[in-house]
Amino acid sequence: VRFPPVLRDDWLRAPEGLQPVAGGSVTTPTGYEAAAGACGLKPSGALDLGVLRSTRPTTSWLVDTVNALPAAAIRLNRSRDRSAFRAVVVNAGTANAATGSPGYRDAELMAERTAAALGLDPARVAVSSTGTIGNRLDLDRILPAIDGVCGTLAAGGGADFNRAICTTDRHPKGGAFVLNLPGGPVRIGVAAKGAGMIRPTMATMLAYVTTDAAVGPEDLAAITREAAGAGFNRISVDGQMSPSDTLLVMANGDGRRLAGPDLARLGDAVAAVCRWAAVQMVKDGEGADHAVRILVHGARDGAEAERVARAVGESPLVKTAIFGRDPNWGRISQAVGQALAGSPGEPADVRVRLDGVDLEDPGAAGVMERAEYDVEVSLGRGGGEYELWASDLTHAYVTLNAEYHT
Amino acid sequence: VRFPPVLRDDWLRAPEGLQPVAGGSVTTPTGYEAAAGACGLKPSGALDLGVLRSTRPTTSWLVDTVNALPAAAIRLNRSRDRSAFRAVVVNAGTANAATGSPGYRDAELMAERTAAALGLDPARVAVSSTGTIGNRLDLDRILPAIDGVCGTLAAGGGADFNRAICTTDRHPKGGAFVLNLPGGPVRIGVAAKGAGMIRPTMATMLAYVTTDAAVGPEDLAAITREAAGAGFNRISVDGQMSPSDTLLVMANGDGRRLAGPDLARLGDAVAAVCRWAAVQMVKDGEGADHAVRILVHGARDGAEAERVARAVGESPLVKTAIFGRDPNWGRISQAVGQALAGSPGEPADVRVRLDGVDLEDPGAAGVMERAEYDVEVSLGRGGGEYELWASDLTHAYVTLNAEYHT
Repeated sequence: VRFPPVLRDDWLRAPEGLQPVAGGSVTTPTGYEAAAGACGLKPSGALDLGVLRSTRPTTSWLVDTVNALPAAAIRLNRSRDRSAFRAVVVNAGTANAATGSPGYRDAELMAERTAAALGLDPARVAVSSTGTIGNRLDLDRILPAIDGVCGTLAAGGGADFNRAICTTDRHPKGGAFVLNLPGGPVRIGVAAKGAGMIRPTMATMLAYVTTDAAVGPEDLAAITREAAGAGFNRISVDGQMSPSDTLLVMANGDGRRLAGPDLARLGDAVAAVCRWAAVQMVKDGEGADHAVRILVHGARDGAEAERVARAVGESPLVKTAIFGRDPNWGRISQAVGQALAGSPGEPADVRVRLDGVDLEDPGAAGVMERAEYDVEVSLGRGGGEYELWASDLTHAYVTLNAEYHT
Repeated sequence: VRFPPVLRDDWLRAPEGLQPVAGGSVTTPTGYEAAAGACGLKPSGALDLGVLRSTRPTTSWLVDTVNALPAAAIRLNRSRDRSAFRAVVVNAGTANAATGSPGYRDAELMAERTAAALGLDPARVAVSSTGTIGNRLDLDRILPAIDGVCGTLAAGGGADFNRAICTTDRHPKGGAFVLNLPGGPVRIGVAAKGAGMIRPTMATMLAYVTTDAAVGPEDLAAITREAAGAGFNRISVDGQMSPSDTLLVMANGDGRRLAGPDLARLGDAVAAVCRWAAVQMVKDGEGADHAVRILVHGARDGAEAERVARAVGESPLVKTAIFGRDPNWGRISQAVGQALAGSPGEPADVRVRLDGVDLEDPGAAGVMERAEYDVEVSLGRGGGEYELWASDLTHAYVTLNAEYHT
């Protein structure tokens, strides 16, 4: 884990005392085990099935996609108690989406098989599937593989788990961190996959966060929602939302539950870890060459700032300008104007700066050579702010998405 | 003008009796003159200034962009009586957008100079500018050129006018048509420019429609709004809206004003002509390889159908699949689900057909070899419908938009 060197400190806002663990993973926090296997769902024969569980009782929380056609696993997880997940089984290669009732039953069977192998109630096992949409799972391969994977669970298995959940991500996105609290250190691990193309469908965002801190269910729900809002909900590779997006957070500490300032620091730490994983997803976005943070301020309110940030970050004209290192005022101005269409009054004074350099300054082109930079848009008409991370639109994106065939 | 061969009849829905005029233009209707000149705003030295006027009194209507940062010409035109334009002056090369009060004064000076040369009230002259955003117009070149162009206005000048308004359109988009009505023929001409990249900014959509029919101002307003809604508002190259988009319709017939069924047929004809020009823009979209019509039906209502059509037509994953000729069910399903996020209830039965062939049928890939085809999305939950024309996302788009520099 290279943290923080690959990222700018001001993008993460990590709380004091949060440090990376070399070689860490989702099983670095105490009391977690994972393993992975290959059951042939990926044509390459790579790891494609992973199981992660806590050996101790947990508190959990889960947030998922707002896509109106959610995959079977999403619908199954929603039928469970989101505060009581203790394990998750994930397959890559087939998303089990748009598969109707038979697909839903397949997801149930994955949870049941995993639960049987782990001696858990099936309602304690979350399920994720990522890959092609519209195809059924091959349970003849998956169910026996679940038995095998559950037989090899180990505290060192986090890295394999992270590899198994990837599709065509260029590299797994995960790591672990220690947060030093007055009562002693707690650990936070994360395994994520992002905007990698899998033939012939779109990316799924999956992220699993483990911690050995002791956290009450309502506190963990608040921390998870906050972390999703500050991290995974603020990235845009191509503005597309998958039917399988999932963030699951588990906390298995068995001591006194955190409260007060310690709880707040844990929340800040989980948010920073999620922001770190989210920005990794942008940097590993399909064909991405650059990652930028779009900072909008001076909007009438936060909602207006978000609308402007998304219009800028999702504009193909802006994204190609970032790829082409072209400090193009017109394209950003156009996106801002489009975002504000129908809103009363014109913004008095739209200004754009790249890492603090005015876009019209000759130095702006030099900033665009950086792999990461801030695009700051000030509207000068209020106190609303928003930040969003976005990748650029490159030839590699078009190649990835046009040249794979069903 | 190749009409209808280049387009499918069912895309146009032209009324009976509408026929193309070979070599027609915006000056084919009687009583219109146009001319163009080159004043050096285009680095190539090509025609970049055009004037079009009616030699007779007209009725007019004008609709323009909803971008919240409209260009100076848009703001000037809005200060005029939209039913009383009799001429328009257009420059290409500089959009005169984001230029504040000085830019507004420049637009006024263009109208005043044109009006003086034509012996009109400046309020009768509409202004358009297309090109780079953020730069002032070079009036030292433009104003003398206006005098020269106004001195060469001719009934054969429509084709030059159409060339002058283009930026990097691959070809001018225009033509003329005759509509045979019981009271005798009337003519409709159109000159349009579309989604061509101009360094370093985005496309502007400009369209001018002339007719020698006699139409009352309220009727022409209704016809224009209907034509914009049925044509120019239903295309998407990259989902971006320019600060300069303008549609101006002028009618200069001096006989008895059309009414009843004849008026309705003229309205249908203007709508078909605008749809024709709009689809030409999509076909000439930046880097476009394919033009598709996205037909959504079975939505709860028209607004839901439009939301789904735009989500499909603007999805970079769908657009790259169209470029790659990949009948990718998952990407369309994903876009539909995204469009319906937050809407109550799942669509019961989403079906997708390409020119009538089920997307999952082996024949679907063959349909995608066609330069033009219908993508029909049925949601099966109501009577809402919408149609939208979209281009694909290609390497040429990325090249055009990444490789030009400010």
